[in-house]
Parts: sequence; C-alpha cells; structure tokens
Amino acid sequence: MQGREREQVLTEKDEEFLSDWAVHSRFGAVLGTTGVDRQAASEADGEQRKWFARLLESRNFSVHRDPIGNQFGLLELIPGAPFVLTGSHMDSQPTSGRFDGAYGVMASTHACFRVAEELQIDISSARYNLAIVNWFNEEGSRFKPSMMGSSVFTSKLPLAAALTTLDQRGISVKDALDSIDERGEFEGLDVASYAEIHVQQGRSMEDDGIAIGIVNATWAAHKFEFRVTGEQAHSGSTLMEERRDALLGAARLVVAARELVNEFEPGELHTACGELTVYPNSPVVVASEVRLLVDLRSPSAEVIDAAYRALMRTVERVQREDHVYIEVVAEHCWDQNPYPESGVELAREVAEELQLEHDLVMTVAGHDSTNMKDLVPTIMLFVPSVNGVSHNLNELTKDEDLLVGVNHLTAVVRRLVNGAL
Amino acid sequence: MQGREREQVLTEKDEEFLSDWAVHSRFGAVLGTTGVDRQAASEADGEQRKWFARLLESRNFSVHRDPIGNQFGLLELIPGAPFVLTGSHMDSQPTSGRFDGAYGVMASTHACFRVAEELQIDISSARYNLAIVNWFNEEGSRFKPSMMGSSVFTSKLPLAAALTTLDQRGISVKDALDSIDERGEFEGLDVASYAEIHVQQGRSMEDDGIAIGIVNATWAAHKFEFRVTGEQAHSGSTLMEERRDALLGAARLVVAARELVNEFEPGELHTACGELTVYPNSPVVVASEVRLLVDLRSPSAEVIDAAYRALMRTVERVQREDHVYIEVVAEHCWDQNPYPESGVELAREVAEELQLEHDLVMTVAGHDSTNMKDLVPTIMLFVPSVNGVSHNLNELTKDEDLLVGVNHLTAVVRRLVNGAL
Repeated sequence: MQGREREQVLTEKDEEFLSDWAVHSRFGAVLGTTGVDRQAASEADGEQRKWFARLLESRNFSVHRDPIGNQFGLLELIPGAPFVLTGSHMDSQPTSGRFDGAYGVMASTHACFRVAEELQIDISSARYNLAIVNWFNEEGSRFKPSMMGSSVFTSKLPLAAALTTLDQRGISVKDALDSIDERGEFEGLDVASYAEIHVQQGRSMEDDGIAIGIVNATWAAHKFEFRVTGEQAHSGSTLMEERRDALLGAARLVVAARELVNEFEPGELHTACGELTVYPNSPVVVASEVRLLVDLRSPSAEVIDAAYRALMRTVERVQREDHVYIEVVAEHCWDQNPYPESGVELAREVAEELQLEHDLVMTVAGHDSTNMKDLVPTIMLFVPSVNGVSHNLNELTKDEDLLVGVNHLTAVVRRLVNGAL
Repeated sequence: MQGREREQVLTEKDEEFLSDWAVHSRFGAVLGTTGVDRQAASEADGEQRKWFARLLESRNFSVHRDPIGNQFGLLELIPGAPFVLTGSHMDSQPTSGRFDGAYGVMASTHACFRVAEELQIDISSARYNLAIVNWFNEEGSRFKPSMMGSSVFTSKLPLAAALTTLDQRGISVKDALDSIDERGEFEGLDVASYAEIHVQQGRSMEDDGIAIGIVNATWAAHKFEFRVTGEQAHSGSTLMEERRDALLGAARLVVAARELVNEFEPGELHTACGELTVYPNSPVVVASEVRLLVDLRSPSAEVIDAAYRALMRTVERVQREDHVYIEVVAEHCWDQNPYPESGVELAREVAEELQLEHDLVMTVAGHDSTNMKDLVPTIMLFVPSVNGVSHNLNELTKDEDLLVGVNHLTAVVRRLVNGAL
C-alpha cells in the first residue's frame, strides 16, 4: 500500500511536475540505464528543445531563441516591465545523469507555471514579468568553453567566437545549431533578477540532511590547458635515452596533479585531468604532442596558489628529466566568488517560511548563475543528490527532494515577481 | 664541383633508381618537410599504388592485387616455375619518414628490373621467376594489427577478420580498399624464397660504420592492450577519495612502464605506450575508461619475463590504491625470433663479394619478412639511417647508402633466381 500512501501526499501540482519530468527524462535516454546523452546541439538536444517549446506554448509562454541558441519562454503580463528570469540548461555530458541542468529548467518551468496561475487570479502585487531559460551548452563537452550560452548573453564571450567554435569533428556551433534549427534572432531581454536551481554535485547536503542548499560562493579555481611536445620516434627501436616522449611527460603531470592533493588537508584541494589527447596516437610511435587539461580547485585562493607553484615545479622537472617541452596554452583562474548576500537572505527566508532544512553551501562546479550574478540580483539553490554522484549515468535525486526544490523555487519566483531584490 | 664529382661515380642504374625514388617520395609529401603521410588505403596510398602499377607495367611486369590489397608485380620468364618474391610496404605512419617500407619496395623493384634485364640476355641459369610485392598496411596505425597484408598472405590472419577491421572513423578495410580500387582477386602465388630490405630503425649500423645489416633475429616482445575502468564523476566536485579515475590509473601505468627500464642494464629493455584513448574525454568528467597499449621489448626473453612480472605488480598496486579495474584485453608475446641461417649466410657471401662493410643486426621492429620467414627461405637486410630517426618526418638515409642496398639486394635476387636457398 506504499504506493497509495505516497500518492495521497502528492499534490496535483507535484503530479504535474513529475509527469513532465518523466517525459523529459526520455530524451537522449541511454538504453539500459537511467541516464542520458544529449550533448549541446545534438539530435537529442534538438528533440528536447522542440518538446520544451510546445510545453511552454501550451501555457501561453512565447518561445524565442537568441543567436547563440539560448531558448526563452516569456509570459508578459505587465506590458513593458522587466522579467524575472529562471532556468538552467538541458544539455548533458556524454552519457551522464538526467538531473544535471535539466532539473533546473523543469523546476523553473513549473515554478513559473504556478506563479503565472496565481497572477492570472490576482496580478495586483506583481512588478515584473516571467521568463524561463534553457541556456545553450552549459556543459562544454562538445564545444568549449562551458557556460557558452550564458557567457554570450552576459557579453563575457563574443557571439562570433562562440559560433565559430568547432567540435572534434570540425562542426561549428553555428552549423550544429542550424542543424537542429535552434539559432534565432531574439535579443535584449530586460532581466530584473535571476534564479537557478540545480542538483548538488557533491554529497554534503545528503550527509547533513539538508533539503535546500543556498549557494553563497563558488570555489576558487585555476584551470590549465597544457601542450606537451616531444618528438615522433619508433616506439620499439629508439634508444630509451634518446626519446622525447610527450605522452610520458603528460602522464607525469596527471600523476603529479593527483599527488598534489596529499600536500594539503583533506577537502582543501581538488585536482583533475579529464581530457587528454595524444598525437599521432599510434601503437608504434612515440607521441610528439599531447594536450591535456588540468584543474586545481579549492575554497581557498591561498591553497590554489600553493598548488599552482608546486605544479609549476613539476612542469620544470618533467621538462628537464624527460626532454619534453611543456607550454601552458591557455589558463583561466578565479578567486572564491561570492553570490550576492541579498539573494542568499531571500532564499533563507523562504526556506524558513516553508520549514525546510537549509544551509549555506559552496559550489565547486560552475553554473550559468555564475555569469548572471555579475549582472543582476541572483539566487542559486541546490537540492541533494544521492551519494553526490554527478556526470554519471547513475546520478539520482529522489522525487521528494525534486518536489521540495520546485516548491522552494516557486516561492522565490513569487517574491521576485513581486519586486524582492 | 662536388655535384659533378658525385655524378661521375653514379652509374646509369644508380641514376634510374634515384630518379624513381625522387618521384615516389612526393606521394603524400607533408608540406614544408621531407616526410610523408600515406597511411594504409588513404588517398595518397591510392595514388602511389597507381603510379607503382604503371612503373611495373612499363617493364613488362604484370600487376595483380589480392583480396587484402597486397600489390604484386610478376615477371614470368619460366612458365610455371615458382617466384622469388621481394618487397616491403609503401604505407606510412601518420606524418612519418619517406624511407620506412617505401625504400624496400623501390629497392626490390630496381633489383628485379636489373635481374630481369640480365635474364633477357641469358636465362639459362635461372630456376625461378621474379615477383615484387607492396604489402598492404604494414604500419597498423590506421587499421590494427600491423603487418596485415603479409599476415593474411601467410594465413596467420583470416581474410574476413582483416577486411572487417574498422579505423577510428568506423571505415572498414574493405571499404577503404574499395575507395582506392585496390582490392583484387589474385591468389596463390607460388613463392620459392623472399627477400626484403629496410632502413634500420636504430643507429647501431651508423655508429659502427656498417653498410649492410644482415638481420639474424627479432627482439623478444610482450605487447599489451590494457583497459582501465573507473567511474564517471564530476571532476570538480567529487571528493578525491571517492574518485575512481581511469586516466589516473592509465597515467600510472605509462610512468611505471618507463621506470621499469631503470631496473635493467642500458639497452636491455625498451618500453613504450604510443596509443592511449580516454572516455568520455571531457574537461569536467573523471574518465570512466582508458585504453592503452604498452609494449615491452628486449633481446632477452628473461628480461621480458622479469619486466612482465614487475609490470603486473604495478597493475595490482594501481588497482588497489586508485580503485580502478585494469584488464589485459589483448596481449601478444614472442620470444627472440631467428631468421634462417642459410639466408644470413647467403647475404654475408654477397656482402663479401661486393666488399661491403656488413654485420649481423637484430631488429626491434617487426617486418613483413617476420611473417614470410615462417613459410619460405627468407633474407632480411638493413641499410643505415641517420641518427636512427624513425617514424618521424625527418627520417633520412643518404643516397649512397640507398644505392649500396639496391646493389646488394640485386646480387641477392640474382642468386635466389638461380636457385640459391
């Protein structure tokens, strides 16, 4: 009888959300798993966008696409007034979970649907209109950089540079967007404030029994693209001491990045290399060039700085000992980056009003809200994720946690529409 | 006046060889370098094969292609008699030198042309006919395994398995061969003996002043394809101790393979990883799967065995410490593999007759002759390579060394046609 009991505690609005959520989770579904594969501007991305447009239109939201493929749903109840914008991204990493980003778009959509219904009864308190966004290419797996759509929207990345970015098969963002008919001409949305909700990509909320995480800052980070240059040689016959093996040099950096972590307290430093490409990548050829991405992340800028210096000492040593040349071809670093206190306070008031366990959390991952918060008052929320599993087919957030997030976000959007922040 | 002096010492036959060699070096030439890029069944491979067929036909050799794209030129002067076969391969690694393989085919061609001219004057001593071969896909960079054409010819690899092998873009050997119109139906060449000449992929001959290397054995080897399995996770937010990073595990194997060398005397062990592929290879995802090829090579089977055991201890340690799973998905090993003594003796007699500095050398790399020697009497010869540079655009063998090789091979072919071995 558990099923019936559960049914009894779900409201009609909860059922509506879960029903749309179940449909959306099928786009790009990976057979035999609960996960998805719907990279930016892929066929699956095109399909979910078409479905999403119809969903928005069914509730009288007008659908627009801007020149970088951000998809907007607008409901203009107060002609000429600015918009409260809320959303996230529907694109995924290759073979990843169905919640990352997509939950944020669907929660925003239902929050706006609910507030829109309220406004149709009584619009007297409203100061702003409602807008939902599905940002293009937040993941950055097919086209770099990540957060491409929100970066162009906030003028941090030139449109022309984004559109000419190529994937590994040489297809441009422009052509990929055109192939799914998702490049438009919409421009110039007047945004009053922005809210985003996302599954936590970590396990602290689950461990601490927190229902709503209120994001107060992003971790500091230093990200590198290294190019290791060696020299092609026969991998069998060339004397070992005469080799200049780019893959050996790169492997030493991958190992060194991991071992750096041991020089700090647990949790102080996260390091990673997720992408590494070898040329010519042939069984009997010593590699002449390897490109790899190495990230250092920490809540503390001092830790990042110390880790950076240690990594550069390793780079010097590897160059000397393995006779390779190592360049930093791109790097990008930022300090710990706070979210505005006013938004944090509003989210806290809502959580208390709804009697939800809440706490401040930092985000290690970047989000589109990281771009938006530099322009407009912004709120970033998390719901828990089982075991913190992320960028993995088995990513899971329980239905009850999803629904609590939608409820919280609805109350946030209601306040924002009424002029809070 | 150096140019004229040099011209004076070149015979007409030398000039003919160098002229054809210069033409052939242009196929797949990499702009701004002296190297080439003509992987198996590429457009450049198709072009060189068409040119080669015309060259053979101009000397009345009939051109045939077998079902795996081996290209043969036959001159049947003694109807029904078996053939002396000589050749090598024209395919190259991606961006590699112009000598590797190609020199062997062109030297064989001119050796046969010269012997054919002699036979047209006096055929009385001849017992066998003449055949030249350009083996398909010796390099194995685009399609694995290497030595594909000679492996099918010697029944070591089933034709169907070879034809259905895919390159990284999913194109099969069959389709690739058809796209350059190089798949034929020729079968059943009756081979009396085989000779091959190649540039040394090492520097010992140059260091020792040797003009003709007589290959008496291949090094022992143990080759592995490893699959390292971890689990996809967010590369920023996932706690370090919860990661199962396949790329970290693979990097540790690459480093360990290199460091293994230090446990043996200099030159006793060569190790390499030239190919490594990461999935999903995304900037913010901990890799769930890495495939890599690791080779151990040594003149001594005991060294290989000790190195193998040490490598497997590393595999155990990496599995335990980095929480990844490491499988050997394929392996291939062979002991030191001798070339037949009768062929070595014949090559030595020829070198002494021609008063050429010669010595026995071992080959670290595999050659098509490694397949042929298990079927028929076989001779494998080397000429020196400047600094032993191999699988590199800058590979170089001097003209005078090329010409000495053609002269030596001509004398070998002459003896083989007359029934030696």
